[in-house]
Amino acid sequence: MSGFGPDHLPYGVFSTPGSDPRVGVRLGDGVIDLAFETGLAHFAEPSLDAFLALGPDAWADTRAEVTRIVTADSFELLPLASVTLHLPFTVADYTDFYCSEHHASAVGRLFRPSADPDADPLLPNWRHLPVGYHGRSGSVVVSGTPVARPRGQVAGPEGPSYGPTGKLDLEAELGFVVGAPTATGTTVAPRDVARHVFGVVGLNDWSARDVQAWEYRPLGPFLGKSFATSVSAWVTPLAALTRAWVPLPGQSPEPLPHLADTSRRPGLDVAVEVLVDGVVVSRPPYASTYWSPGQMLAHLTSNGAALRTGDLFASGTISGPDPEQAGSLLELTHDGTRPLAAFAGRPDADRTWLRDGDEVTLRFSAPGPTGGRLTLGEVTALITPA
Amino acid sequence: MSGFGPDHLPYGVFSTPGSDPRVGVRLGDGVIDLAFETGLAHFAEPSLDAFLALGPDAWADTRAEVTRIVTADSFELLPLASVTLHLPFTVADYTDFYCSEHHASAVGRLFRPSADPDADPLLPNWRHLPVGYHGRSGSVVVSGTPVARPRGQVAGPEGPSYGPTGKLDLEAELGFVVGAPTATGTTVAPRDVARHVFGVVGLNDWSARDVQAWEYRPLGPFLGKSFATSVSAWVTPLAALTRAWVPLPGQSPEPLPHLADTSRRPGLDVAVEVLVDGVVVSRPPYASTYWSPGQMLAHLTSNGAALRTGDLFASGTISGPDPEQAGSLLELTHDGTRPLAAFAGRPDADRTWLRDGDEVTLRFSAPGPTGGRLTLGEVTALITPA
Repeated sequence: MSGFGPDHLPYGVFSTPGSDPRVGVRLGDGVIDLAFETGLAHFAEPSLDAFLALGPDAWADTRAEVTRIVTADSFELLPLASVTLHLPFTVADYTDFYCSEHHASAVGRLFRPSADPDADPLLPNWRHLPVGYHGRSGSVVVSGTPVARPRGQVAGPEGPSYGPTGKLDLEAELGFVVGAPTATGTTVAPRDVARHVFGVVGLNDWSARDVQAWEYRPLGPFLGKSFATSVSAWVTPLAALTRAWVPLPGQSPEPLPHLADTSRRPGLDVAVEVLVDGVVVSRPPYASTYWSPGQMLAHLTSNGAALRTGDLFASGTISGPDPEQAGSLLELTHDGTRPLAAFAGRPDADRTWLRDGDEVTLRFSAPGPTGGRLTLGEVTALITPA
Repeated sequence: MSGFGPDHLPYGVFSTPGSDPRVGVRLGDGVIDLAFETGLAHFAEPSLDAFLALGPDAWADTRAEVTRIVTADSFELLPLASVTLHLPFTVADYTDFYCSEHHASAVGRLFRPSADPDADPLLPNWRHLPVGYHGRSGSVVVSGTPVARPRGQVAGPEGPSYGPTGKLDLEAELGFVVGAPTATGTTVAPRDVARHVFGVVGLNDWSARDVQAWEYRPLGPFLGKSFATSVSAWVTPLAALTRAWVPLPGQSPEPLPHLADTSRRPGLDVAVEVLVDGVVVSRPPYASTYWSPGQMLAHLTSNGAALRTGDLFASGTISGPDPEQAGSLLELTHDGTRPLAAFAGRPDADRTWLRDGDEVTLRFSAPGPTGGRLTLGEVTALITPA
């Protein structure tokens, strides 16, 4: 079943020629039509929205029912190759965090170099809260959607200019999909993450580094990010990740009480592979991330902001402790000054930033609930010219 | 008609006891039920979304039809006091800009003080592009909704702490409501703003300055803003503002060609009044704003990001050239160090930041299309305790 066995059952939205999009679950290389198999109206919709809004009890009941269907062996399996996959949910607010200490430190060294080799590359707030910002939810697209090289304004020796970005980058991230909403004024404790988050998607937060570097002060990234964010077509429910939770690498200083994650295992052991034109350029381990999913959610709601069904929050670039485990080309190429090590000895050994025609793929896997590994939904896109 | 005469006709969403929300226009102190008067299905919906999506030709036709209805004098006028007003449209992406040179300069001096009195308080990018960022669309509420003092993490001499903000602020802004969408990859020229923007709302971008100051580096404002953004219940169509367009105060250096606003009158003459507990604390003139509405829209789409119906973009705090014309308490009180001048001689003469129980009101007016002035929808809210 190559990671999509009956212990996984991720949800997505698909259509077949001449039929409307509807909800299905993936099993092996096929899709089970949940609208047909269950007769439930909320699965006949073109998104997971109505199902997500039902909340954790309904999610558990449905997973049990789908497991029964799969076990009974009397279902129809549509070949994956015969269906079109769609964006699985309507993105309400999209929030991107900056949770990897290794990524934030590397970016700090590149963007804010210090003469003092002992200087902390992290800003003073970084170890006290998961830094984040809002992205453009209207630019979230499903895996497989081509991404056009964006134009933007960049700084130059003779003043700024406007044209296609010369520093197109990927960011390997994990995204978390909120199902159960909250009312304004409600805060969510880190350990309650599974009461609101339905599941996870793979996510590529495409970045134009030259645009970002010029625009980002003082209000943060904007057009350097807002042209596209790709997510996997399949949403893996947290219910399939019960054996993937792990301790965090360690937090010092202790977070303030409202951000302290008292779960026994607040982190997630998700292995990531970053491929450019089929070549693995990095293998970032999400388990090395400093801030937990529950802590992101707690911070996001700590001012009383409401959660809506379809809110998407992402980890920020996942980079491991080893520089070769970085989740962005910014880090892997030292801001474009060193070729990608993975292409050494090849005809295109001088590769740094993404080129038109590149195919970028993020793969994700995690320990499954019955042993073995789950393959999470991949995120792939072709880079097209500006 | 006190600014809501037959030359204005702003749109909103209202309900009456026992009836569903539907679209109306305001005339004087009454509301005309457009679902009833026109029989059109898209006015029987609980938002302007379907109407906004129809685009500029339909907006013009509808305005002509509503004008006929109003002129015929055979319509029913529901007293404003008998209806409940609702958020008039579903906010897709909310983007906030930073377009006032006077505001950005004042904030620069407060947050990045320089020993050199001739130092430019603006960052190098500021005169080359309208700096902006994405806010939280799920936190946009209609005028009249109480705003609870948010909690947040703030810096302190003994490390950060979490509690109710001590620096609750208002920001007087003008918001622009996108009706006609664009496809990904499309850019919009500044002079085409009226092909996509349906109209304007008053907007208060509430801010917790202590939370914002601690969190904002390097990814920009987040929880210091995301607890609430208030908009007026009435959307004034651009069609009512034909005589409100004015030249910009002047731009130097010339913007790059894609940002050059070649409209003859790219700015808007909207007068703003900021009231705290009924006392006018400032009168910021929107006409003094550096970047035009068309330039915001052009910048927003310059990387090919799609526009969706319901996208809301705002001017950023409107502050005039006179420090007493500032649109935020941050400026009016010099970061809380000087009492509000408007309260001098009163029992509460020591006022700086907003207090629980304060009622904050923003009023907006503009030249009307047939002489006289339009009163744009006001934005009001009561501050409730954390």
